[in-house]
Amino acid sequence: MTVHLIKHAAEDADVAFAARVSTLGGETRFNEVSDKDSGLINYLMRDRHGSPFEHTSFTFYIEAPIFVAREFMRHRTGWSYNEESARYKELEPVFYVPEDGRPLRQVGKPGAYSFELGTYKQFMCVSGDIRRVSSEAYSTYKRLLDLEVAREVARMVLPVNIYTSFYATCNARSLMHFLGLRTKSDAAKFPSFPQREIEMVAEQMEDHFSFQMPHTWVAFQNNGRVAP
Amino acid sequence: MTVHLIKHAAEDADVAFAARVSTLGGETRFNEVSDKDSGLINYLMRDRHGSPFEHTSFTFYIEAPIFVAREFMRHRTGWSYNEESARYKELEPVFYVPEDGRPLRQVGKPGAYSFELGTYKQFMCVSGDIRRVSSEAYSTYKRLLDLEVAREVARMVLPVNIYTSFYATCNARSLMHFLGLRTKSDAAKFPSFPQREIEMVAEQMEDHFSFQMPHTWVAFQNNGRVAP
Amino acid sequence: MTVHLIKHAAEDADVAFAARVSTLGGETRFNEVSDKDSGLINYLMRDRHGSPFEHTSFTFYIEAPIFVAREFMRHRTGWSYNEESARYKELEPVFYVPEDGRPLRQVGKPGAYSFELGTYKQFMCVSGDIRRVSSEAYSTYKRLLDLEVAREVARMVLPVNIYTSFYATCNARSLMHFLGLRTKSDAAKFPSFPQREIEMVAEQMEDHFSFQMPHTWVAFQNNGRVAP
Amino acid sequence: MTVHLIKHAAEDADVAFAARVSTLGGETRFNEVSDKDSGLINYLMRDRHGSPFEHTSFTFYIEAPIFVAREFMRHRTGWSYNEESARYKELEPVFYVPEDGRPLRQVGKPGAYSFELGTYKQFMCVSGDIRRVSSEAYSTYKRLLDLEVAREVARMVLPVNIYTSFYATCNARSLMHFLGLRTKSDAAKFPSFPQREIEMVAEQMEDHFSFQMPHTWVAFQNNGRVAP
Repeated sequence: MTVHLIKHAAEDADVAFAARVSTLGGETRFNEVSDKDSGLINYLMRDRHGSPFEHTSFTFYIEAPIFVAREFMRHRTGWSYNEESARYKELEPVFYVPEDGRPLRQVGKPGAYSFELGTYKQFMCVSGDIRRVSSEAYSTYKRLLDLEVAREVARMVLPVNIYTSFYATCNARSLMHFLGLRTKSDAAKFPSFPQREIEMVAEQMEDHFSFQMPHTWVAFQNNGRVAP
Repeated sequence: MTVHLIKHAAEDADVAFAARVSTLGGETRFNEVSDKDSGLINYLMRDRHGSPFEHTSFTFYIEAPIFVAREFMRHRTGWSYNEESARYKELEPVFYVPEDGRPLRQVGKPGAYSFELGTYKQFMCVSGDIRRVSSEAYSTYKRLLDLEVAREVARMVLPVNIYTSFYATCNARSLMHFLGLRTKSDAAKFPSFPQREIEMVAEQMEDHFSFQMPHTWVAFQNNGRVAP
Repeated sequence: MTVHLIKHAAEDADVAFAARVSTLGGETRFNEVSDKDSGLINYLMRDRHGSPFEHTSFTFYIEAPIFVAREFMRHRTGWSYNEESARYKELEPVFYVPEDGRPLRQVGKPGAYSFELGTYKQFMCVSGDIRRVSSEAYSTYKRLLDLEVAREVARMVLPVNIYTSFYATCNARSLMHFLGLRTKSDAAKFPSFPQREIEMVAEQMEDHFSFQMPHTWVAFQNNGRVAP
Repeated sequence: MTVHLIKHAAEDADVAFAARVSTLGGETRFNEVSDKDSGLINYLMRDRHGSPFEHTSFTFYIEAPIFVAREFMRHRTGWSYNEESARYKELEPVFYVPEDGRPLRQVGKPGAYSFELGTYKQFMCVSGDIRRVSSEAYSTYKRLLDLEVAREVARMVLPVNIYTSFYATCNARSLMHFLGLRTKSDAAKFPSFPQREIEMVAEQMEDHFSFQMPHTWVAFQNNGRVAP
């Protein structure tokens, strides 16, 4: 699971300047942070004034298994995507296999469940079976390609744990919405039950976000991790 | 590949009434088709006035393999989705296998390729290999579930040709954008190279569309199948 | 301020069916309400699972002054609009004038203010001045039109309290987002300070919403009027 | 009419890199332009592959009359706005008055009309009347404010030619869509009939666009000014 921040145009000051146009008008500078910005940003977050957070842009390059990309790309508003295509290129034999320590047992019902670590036997079966099925699927894939079957047909045998890669561009508002849904946190006002693997992606994205927009991130954290 | 039109609120008259508010104002009836509607709809399509086509709603229930759903859900603007979750339910052993007659050989390069039918050997290999890999993957999936491994982990071995199901709601404008990209047609002004399997879904959706909004469909067809 | 619900395809059952596809799959009926739907809808609202509310459609026809339409059309996601155009038709001399009882004095600062009724003198001035300026502006508008000045130029003199009319189509999720921001309510978890005139529009829209989707409306009300 | 490009993260190279992830995968550099980029960008534009153009961001600060802002903010997809609020601040007495040379007479019907310059008498009337109505409206506005009437009520008398200011953030795809609709051009494949005043804004935005993304602008121009 790899996340690179390819480029960004996103600072705390962007939020403050955009917000102040409502009450002051005529501001044209966009690159200095005033003393009052932190308080203003917290107020905007708390009372759910979301639009000032949109004048920002993050472009990430992400490598993740297909089952993660599938969840990721359900985020529509304020997101743009370009993804590696298994119709246009041959996929590499890179598959996700859960590491030791990935909880394997689900306890409870949808909407209120937790995970436990799993037994040694479970871990060995998961690890072994996923490796075996991935390997066999990829051999079949290659065999079909060697027979000159079209990539878009041969790829049908590949499992959802094969890696894909994509660019994802968003603004701070859409990013916070994603982070609020795709991570668990004690600071969160609303429960969320993300799959661990997309959370691993989200955590890396959040590191970039908190580094680029520290005041916005603190306000997000202090207001229940609910996107404004 | 199954497409049901679950419900709709979409008629040609909706387009005409929405358009006439610009020039007449004050119209409040929305359910009769006047003689001039057909010409108006064609004019709107031709000159790319898209917004009048948005006051319409189609909800489809679709069963398709994951590799089709992946392409489908890249359509963001004007689309809403709810999909069966392999985290919350056990998937059924229903897999897509190309039928005899599905072209298997790709000829040419990205952006300008075509497909040929494939040899008997190719067809037998594709068909046999996809069945075998699907079957082995599903057995492994069930074995992991029997070991009480969480569904969200066990599903990692499943190939992208397993069926999923989802609701998709759109308006006539977003639907035409989808149809223009996901079908090939001699009437199309711009080339498109959809994977055959998503085209099979799109064709069924287009049947529903042309039945519910015949004048709009004709105008779409007569104007190069470019969404306004 | 007039709001007509022109058409709709929106029932509580739509929400429940869309939600159940996640856990059950394969549902294709969309028109019956089960006993458990109410609880499910409340759960979705509470934990902010928004997408099941999107498979619904409301089309409103609204007559309101330009300053209200301006605020209204800032709502982008999940909204479609077609509006009367002062470039294509001559506007009617219909202007908004606050009625007796409309609070006229603002007390407090942005983000935490309230309104008081105003004195008799204030009311007389507001009422008289708005009538006078509207009337003079409209006379000038007509005079310019009589001189064969283009409508798009002549309209520049018209004040923002002149009425416009438009169709607005949304789904239940985007509608709740609008209602949460454009009304004040004791039930609201977050403060909002809508202009009274857009609130008058929103209240009529909410009447339609609560009538068509009563369980969804109750869940919205019981969960702080925060759109999921 | 003022347009400042406040900040941007938008280069031709962004488009090429985003597009190449489909066929190459694994690219992570985003800041160099290769020799083949220009051809690739033209191909993407021609065949309407729009998503690679979305990984870019422009933030404009715009001063324009309300009737222009109204048309501008009808652009929803891929646009973010924050605007000066006449509820929170007192507006300045700055009004738009057409200059000598602004065509004043409309000839023809909706969908196929043109403009002529107008007579001297027409110009004098337009200029004089707009100045007079603006001035009287603003005096009334100030009088109501002096009487301690709330800003949100007093502003109802202001005409739509008063200036407002706002930040607008978009990507190259949404920007091209705007430019295609809001300018006239011999290079355009589809007719458009923008109001001259929004075209004056669009032309300034296009200057910034063509400077920042010259290859993309050329491809836009060469392909009928239709956004991909």
